[in-house]
Amino acid sequence: MHAQVTHCDRIPVMARIAPLSGFPEWLPEGRVVETHIVDALRRTFELHGFAGIETRAVEPLDQLLRKGETSKEVYVLSRLQADDDGASGGRAEKSADKQLGLHFDLTVPFARYVLENAGKLAFPFKRYQIQKVWRGERPQEGRFREFVQADIDVVGAGDLPYHFEVELPLVMAEALGSLQAIGVPPVKILVNNRKVAEGFYRGIGLTDIEGTLRCIDKLDKIGASEVTQLLLDEVGATFDQAVACLELAKISGSDATVIEAVRALAKSQGIRVSPDAADAAVDDVAGNQAGALLATGLAELEALITAASVRAPGVVVADLKIARGLDYYTGSVYETVLVGHEQLGSICSGGRYDTLASDGKNTYPGVGLSVGVSRLVARLLSAGLVTASRDVPTAVLVAVNTEEDRARSDAIAAALRVRGIPTDVAPKAAKFGKQIQYADRRSIPYVWFPGSLDDDGTPKPDQVKDIRSGDQTDADASTWTPPAEDLAPQVTPAK
Amino acid sequence: MHAQVTHCDRIPVMARIAPLSGFPEWLPEGRVVETHIVDALRRTFELHGFAGIETRAVEPLDQLLRKGETSKEVYVLSRLQADDDGASGGRAEKSADKQLGLHFDLTVPFARYVLENAGKLAFPFKRYQIQKVWRGERPQEGRFREFVQADIDVVGAGDLPYHFEVELPLVMAEALGSLQAIGVPPVKILVNNRKVAEGFYRGIGLTDIEGTLRCIDKLDKIGASEVTQLLLDEVGATFDQAVACLELAKISGSDATVIEAVRALAKSQGIRVSPDAADAAVDDVAGNQAGALLATGLAELEALITAASVRAPGVVVADLKIARGLDYYTGSVYETVLVGHEQLGSICSGGRYDTLASDGKNTYPGVGLSVGVSRLVARLLSAGLVTASRDVPTAVLVAVNTEEDRARSDAIAAALRVRGIPTDVAPKAAKFGKQIQYADRRSIPYVWFPGSLDDDGTPKPDQVKDIRSGDQTDADASTWTPPAEDLAPQVTPAK
Repeated sequence: MHAQVTHCDRIPVMARIAPLSGFPEWLPEGRVVETHIVDALRRTFELHGFAGIETRAVEPLDQLLRKGETSKEVYVLSRLQADDDGASGGRAEKSADKQLGLHFDLTVPFARYVLENAGKLAFPFKRYQIQKVWRGERPQEGRFREFVQADIDVVGAGDLPYHFEVELPLVMAEALGSLQAIGVPPVKILVNNRKVAEGFYRGIGLTDIEGTLRCIDKLDKIGASEVTQLLLDEVGATFDQAVACLELAKISGSDATVIEAVRALAKSQGIRVSPDAADAAVDDVAGNQAGALLATGLAELEALITAASVRAPGVVVADLKIARGLDYYTGSVYETVLVGHEQLGSICSGGRYDTLASDGKNTYPGVGLSVGVSRLVARLLSAGLVTASRDVPTAVLVAVNTEEDRARSDAIAAALRVRGIPTDVAPKAAKFGKQIQYADRRSIPYVWFPGSLDDDGTPKPDQVKDIRSGDQTDADASTWTPPAEDLAPQVTPAK
Repeated sequence: MHAQVTHCDRIPVMARIAPLSGFPEWLPEGRVVETHIVDALRRTFELHGFAGIETRAVEPLDQLLRKGETSKEVYVLSRLQADDDGASGGRAEKSADKQLGLHFDLTVPFARYVLENAGKLAFPFKRYQIQKVWRGERPQEGRFREFVQADIDVVGAGDLPYHFEVELPLVMAEALGSLQAIGVPPVKILVNNRKVAEGFYRGIGLTDIEGTLRCIDKLDKIGASEVTQLLLDEVGATFDQAVACLELAKISGSDATVIEAVRALAKSQGIRVSPDAADAAVDDVAGNQAGALLATGLAELEALITAASVRAPGVVVADLKIARGLDYYTGSVYETVLVGHEQLGSICSGGRYDTLASDGKNTYPGVGLSVGVSRLVARLLSAGLVTASRDVPTAVLVAVNTEEDRARSDAIAAALRVRGIPTDVAPKAAKFGKQIQYADRRSIPYVWFPGSLDDDGTPKPDQVKDIRSGDQTDADASTWTPPAEDLAPQVTPAK
């Protein structure tokens, strides 16, 4: 199909129209679902006192490249030069302007926003942020180049109490749980604590903690024997050390037995799990520090699963294999799976950073999670889990008797809208059958017929027809109201 | 200030943090105002039956460059290559991937969306779209490089009745008018019709219609004598022709006298304003065609101002100098000024395109308008016209007696939230004075005190304090409700 988008014949013919891989777009019905989800998340975030912010889409490139691993993913911007003919395009900016790239997450821009506005924000600062992000990755199922994230974070000035590490996944449990009403599967939030992992790894004599986390992070993808090999090859683990790491990663559960299992494993590895490193025998300072770190981590993890078992029973599961390999978390870490869709990967991840941001003098610790909204919506639509009752907001279509009489239909529509009833007016004074068809194609539930005039000019009453049931009754636009569930498109579980 | 955003010591020190010119960001209070405005626009658009869509942020570069004049404004994307060390950045994409740029408006992507999904959309298709757009222009007051637009358009398949050209500016009048409640000045929507301008220009013998429109478009910026000179120099007008163009541009008003004034001017220029070109004397076909076009345009313009004077009295003004010089409109054109802030320029513009999109076989005419949300918000904030009662959603802060007793405060907060009351819990069990200060700094109106326990363990009743009045009363979290106006931040005219 050759196509033309613009509006005068100086304009050349347009190239073939085809979707761009990795840049999802929804038809209006899909957008109704996405909007419903975003509105529901926002409602829960606001109920918990999170303030909404938005940051610009771009950051200076040097900011975006600080996490070495992500550099390949950044889209860099350049302006077409004034002296460019516009045909070749894409030349890098030659001016002294700072190079800019599109943000690939909402954490880096939020950290910059906090530093830039630190004097004007009240800490602890709780914010939510729902925006698009871009990554130049190869597109594949569940991975997009442009997608919407919905983040919540709390950031403190100087310190941030541990209880926020309990609070934030519970806010997400509530937000995502509220979506079950529309057919979103229940979620499981898998939690771990970096202090547990680091304490354990150090306790068994490993020193490359990040390397070990990166290996463990691959467990679901490549399996235990490959991870064992990686641990031997990449972090210099002995076979026994590798086996111990895998034993730790096997532990999961939603009550205190998890803590006991980790303690028992640590003990079997000769780690002294003590809450007090000062207790350390002088001949094993490192080992005792590791044990103290492990003890702290276990106490935190226990506090989290204990609170969660009361406030969101069955949702939060301690899972010691959760590593979040590429991120620089320092405490709790979180991943979230849709029950029954675990192979989709995590739809909501995050954790605690002791240094979300720092200006050298002040440090801003933070904890937060990020929902992959597009990944979630894409799965809901492709798996047919969720459906919208209609793809327009319209509850009522007002028919038009004749074009000369359109003003009367407009006045009826205005009377309905002023009372909050989304109303459209038929585009043409066609036969009523065609006008009803206009409503039917859009699943607009009601068609309103302005009363015709008697021979003496007296108007007959208006009538409204429920085109689903065929019921038609007299109605007055200043008082008639549809049932609440017909006012807006209903998003519900698909049958 | 040297600053560091990320989280491990492999990361280099961050460059100086400074705002990027042309990329506006709001503090939380400004964001409350922006969100309120976007929600209000969306509500009105949905009441009128417009379906919300979003398109991806990028389009193939060849699409974006079809309007010659805008090529300088496009931001082109390139991915950092895998073989790039990440330090130099900004190299243009070498792969066969189609070059991509960020959209500079929402019309080009919407036209592409319509073509791409034509088989799945129901026409006429009414959509709204509220998204960021990017232009690599030099930033100046009211002109940004990244900004939010809120568009409504109706697009037909094959045809689109004229009445939509009346409907759409009235929807915008209602949407923008609803913002007066929060202190946004009233708007004037200035309308014109391309057929009037083209019919008149052709009628006086000019043939470079686009060139003439571009000159007239500069009237407010450079004044009448400079425009006269431009018309002589750039479109080859005679002095008399230039004067006639300026006479036309002087005409404005909100009732039928405008139509009469144009007719009289046309007559004085020897143009036969006839609704029927077939009437044409054989010796003056071009002249009569011009007169017929002028007659059609005047009939349309009259229909618009007549309907507007009934449905939005005082808002819509016919203004014959409105040219929209750079756009390829074919019928009605619209600009909108904030009364008292006319020098800000138009905050909402648009018009009718006979060919919004075309695939060669099918043509999709459209009419729409676009609100410059960021320009509006920036002015409201910088001129101090609008204020938000608080910059957090929180209505109630629940105090914490002791850290051991935090669970009780959490349970109170949960009981309030479940009834839709946005609630936060104090971050620390500090002295009550400090906890009240936490609420006060954020203008949270209520602080909730969990009842302390008697010596025998019996809890005393909870109390809630309105920190504005100091009133403190017993309260039960399962029944207490604040007045509706305290539930969410109120956005109101600034004093």
